[in-house]
Amino acid sequence: MATLGNSANIFWHECPVGQAERQKLLNQKGCVVWITGLSGSGKSTLACTLGRELHSRGHLSYVLDGDNLRHGLNKNLGFAPEDRTENIRRVGEVAKLFADAGLICIASLISPYQKDRDSCRALLPDANFIEVFMNMPLSLCEGRDPKGLYKLARAGKIKGFTGIDDPYEAPLNCEIELRQINGVCPAPSEMAGKVVSYLDSKGFLQA
Amino acid sequence: MATLGNSANIFWHECPVGQAERQKLLNQKGCVVWITGLSGSGKSTLACTLGRELHSRGHLSYVLDGDNLRHGLNKNLGFAPEDRTENIRRVGEVAKLFADAGLICIASLISPYQKDRDSCRALLPDANFIEVFMNMPLSLCEGRDPKGLYKLARAGKIKGFTGIDDPYEAPLNCEIELRQINGVCPAPSEMAGKVVSYLDSKGFLQA
Repeated sequence: MATLGNSANIFWHECPVGQAERQKLLNQKGCVVWITGLSGSGKSTLACTLGRELHSRGHLSYVLDGDNLRHGLNKNLGFAPEDRTENIRRVGEVAKLFADAGLICIASLISPYQKDRDSCRALLPDANFIEVFMNMPLSLCEGRDPKGLYKLARAGKIKGFTGIDDPYEAPLNCEIELRQINGVCPAPSEMAGKVVSYLDSKGFLQA
Repeated sequence: MATLGNSANIFWHECPVGQAERQKLLNQKGCVVWITGLSGSGKSTLACTLGRELHSRGHLSYVLDGDNLRHGLNKNLGFAPEDRTENIRRVGEVAKLFADAGLICIASLISPYQKDRDSCRALLPDANFIEVFMNMPLSLCEGRDPKGLYKLARAGKIKGFTGIDDPYEAPLNCEIELRQINGVCPAPSEMAGKVVSYLDSKGFLQA
């Protein structure tokens, strides 16, 4: 054998301070709030507003933003299908670590494929993965086009763009769905409030 | 262009809750304690003892163990040189996220090459990367051989094993060096105490 590449040689170290103790210190339960939706649907805005609201209540959260991570952990990944899958896998694994550390981890990624989201969900106890679907119409997202990407996609200057020439698979089993009401998008604070209420009702905001 | 693989199209989202606010909530400063040394030098034991000691003082830390991460985030990496480098790079990037979240992140990896450790150091403000060198003699580590790996390496059953047929580059610029005193290895609590004193003296144990 040429190298040590044998999982039989990789041991698991259990540490004496566990998740339960960290959760007690923080007076909350670690979990992953996974925000999925089209580009421009408001994922980052919700993530930040939610982080702010949790902080104001004395809770520790951390936002894993898909775009930001592509500047660091995932900077060696592109947008080919296998790279997209690996991108989401890594974010899922890191989110799991943050939840284990006791934090409310807010992951914000387009994550268009059900299969990839389900793989991340499977990393955690099911109740600790809270999938939030930003169910906003493509026309709204494209009208916002905060990064000018829809324009480029429509012009054929970027290909494989979710919602234009690559599919977005709407969640089949999300815990929270956020959508327009009478054609009006709820304010970020209202949407964040809905997530906070969910977390509270499920006992995540206490140890 | 075939895909969206263009960093010009990846934006950076700044969140309204920043590191300073999380640090205030936790009453500590985020940093990375990077423990390096041979297999069997006591890295995992120190990491756990340090985590326990910090917890007893009300501080939130989290251990990133090289072996454990190879079961999750890094499970698609082997032990070829480029995989070892990528393994350490990912741990460095995740450690940076934890420090940004306000935690005292304790990374425990053999990390035998100066270049790879320096790359991780470069991800953070220099003062926030605290390199701890477990400077234990090979004979001691091999005598312990807690995982039976030295035996396998000596028998030629695993190749490229650090200290046997792959080099360990001792740190040139570590913040803390732990070694035997009069041929006796200090107790884990004593070594952890040395790291805690360092963190305290540098102001990491308050916001």
